[in-house]
Amino acid sequence: MTDTVRIALDAMGGDHGPSVVVPGASIALSRKPDLRFLFVGDEAQIRPLVDADPTLKPVSEILHTTVTVAMDDKPSVALRKGRYKSSMWLALEAAKTRKADAAISAGNTGALMAMSRLCVRMMPNVDRPAIAAIWPTTRGESIVLDVGATIGADARQLVDFAVMGAAMARILFDIERPTVGLLNVGVEEVKGVEEVKEAARLLREGHFPALDFRGFIEGDDIGKGTVDVVVTEGFSGNIALKTAEGTAKQIGEYLRSAITRTFLSKVGYVLAKHAFDTLREKMDPRKVNGGVFLGLDGVVIKSHGGTDAEGFASAVELGYDMARYDLEEKIREGFAQDGAAAPDAPSEPALAGAAS
Amino acid sequence: MTDTVRIALDAMGGDHGPSVVVPGASIALSRKPDLRFLFVGDEAQIRPLVDADPTLKPVSEILHTTVTVAMDDKPSVALRKGRYKSSMWLALEAAKTRKADAAISAGNTGALMAMSRLCVRMMPNVDRPAIAAIWPTTRGESIVLDVGATIGADARQLVDFAVMGAAMARILFDIERPTVGLLNVGVEEVKGVEEVKEAARLLREGHFPALDFRGFIEGDDIGKGTVDVVVTEGFSGNIALKTAEGTAKQIGEYLRSAITRTFLSKVGYVLAKHAFDTLREKMDPRKVNGGVFLGLDGVVIKSHGGTDAEGFASAVELGYDMARYDLEEKIREGFAQDGAAAPDAPSEPALAGAAS
Repeated sequence: MTDTVRIALDAMGGDHGPSVVVPGASIALSRKPDLRFLFVGDEAQIRPLVDADPTLKPVSEILHTTVTVAMDDKPSVALRKGRYKSSMWLALEAAKTRKADAAISAGNTGALMAMSRLCVRMMPNVDRPAIAAIWPTTRGESIVLDVGATIGADARQLVDFAVMGAAMARILFDIERPTVGLLNVGVEEVKGVEEVKEAARLLREGHFPALDFRGFIEGDDIGKGTVDVVVTEGFSGNIALKTAEGTAKQIGEYLRSAITRTFLSKVGYVLAKHAFDTLREKMDPRKVNGGVFLGLDGVVIKSHGGTDAEGFASAVELGYDMARYDLEEKIREGFAQDGAAAPDAPSEPALAGAAS
Repeated sequence: MTDTVRIALDAMGGDHGPSVVVPGASIALSRKPDLRFLFVGDEAQIRPLVDADPTLKPVSEILHTTVTVAMDDKPSVALRKGRYKSSMWLALEAAKTRKADAAISAGNTGALMAMSRLCVRMMPNVDRPAIAAIWPTTRGESIVLDVGATIGADARQLVDFAVMGAAMARILFDIERPTVGLLNVGVEEVKGVEEVKEAARLLREGHFPALDFRGFIEGDDIGKGTVDVVVTEGFSGNIALKTAEGTAKQIGEYLRSAITRTFLSKVGYVLAKHAFDTLREKMDPRKVNGGVFLGLDGVVIKSHGGTDAEGFASAVELGYDMARYDLEEKIREGFAQDGAAAPDAPSEPALAGAAS
């Protein structure tokens, strides 16, 4: 890490490409002046936007490619047509080769994860990646993982998620020992969650000085902010996240239709507008835009595909924080302190490998 | 089924026992005059409440027992102390022996499910029970199952859930071919949801004239009401349900605190009160109180433990509908029509069995 934080941006990712990515970077730069950018994508589209921004221009480079990954490409298709040459791959490669401290893409999640695993690769001794989302709660924010990187997880993988999520929470919330809960169902003596029970045993009995394990929590604890880090496997985590988003939208629609139904309620709305603005701000998905890919040998952030410049700026700042406060080092510390198998630096290559 | 619908009520279940169950039954009776009740529990507590209600009294019987299942009893403990004699067990037994057309309890879910499986037993050829919840959506209501009866489900069990959920939807929404979706995650080509994919294949390729299979849906489709019946296994279903409840509560709190922050917003609130009342009514959990246990050889309804008389009345009316319009027959039809292995009447006992 130099004095600056260098971010590689997949400028062609997302629904709007450079028209959101470039102004998003500019907004982030206004708040974090030590940012430096590498925009990856079609120079003909990127260059005019960057050059028109006198603050952004001196801190930006462009890496040209015309190959892009489409939002609806299946991961296998994306890999076939975009490996080694797409804007997504080249942004990841910059993070892998340490030309950048983090890579950010608003491109499609499946493709980004597949490419991340192939290009950036996993941290040694971490089996599986997780996507960690920031979840607004009544107490503030929590981290929920995995929200859909992989399906199913054994006890050891859930423990990895706990350690990695806690490392992210240490940075994001600036607390030494974030509280961690395992998502479970309330019914006692239910069969089939052996891996969750076993993960609880490992977390309880192991020594994990960088996290404070609080046992099981249920779905309604997420929004309460009962714990800083909520750990679950990717299928249920993804469904929880999408269901919460759907519920928030649904209530927003109820509210809108209720408010506009009568003249009096419209007047009431105008008077209470400040309150509604506060509410809207609380529920603004742009403020918590960005999923962190955990378990990779580099910092990779996924932005929502449909976000605007303000939302993309949040993702950039999330990447900034993860790089500036060294997420990877925090994860390594978490494992090492915890007495779990530490993902050390790669061991000495065997003789044959060294000779090659 | 006689001209009346007879409901067995676990009068001691829930946080409030007879003080909610008896008035709840009375409210339901005012809307469905052909209801008849069997209150099971401590006669000393039930009798005065029933006798004080001149409408309720002539249509009610009391089955006395002082054994109750506590709200925090583990299923194994509940079975040990409550089998054959608790108010929960005896209410279920009334449904089993057709002394009642349905059993309703606000007691603890795990105990009620364990006792239901032992006392009421499963329908022939249905492996596993499911708990089906009614979920308010922007379009109206949907049915979501399983919200926590069991953990994990193979493809065939998910198909059973689809058929049973559709049977419930036919009654509740009065539509011939309810739409059905399988809850899945959006990431393409993700491994580990083979059973969900296989269930989709079975539902697509089989002949299911009593349901209209629409493929996969995601968590945010639930609140949109994309399909009438959402099918998933119990772990993710329970987490989805609890997460949605938590999100609704969280937004309610945001709204309350925003509204009461300034004088103007308070005035606005008063003017828009009607709108807020509409919203509150939309979000009122009492109106959709009641989970239906599907797959049992009898109708069993679980009411929320903490509900009030109005909420308990909703659960009673749900039981009324399921019994009046013959849920079990609808399920049998669904299987038979669908060409799936039909849960026929029990086959002829083998010779040895017949002789016993």
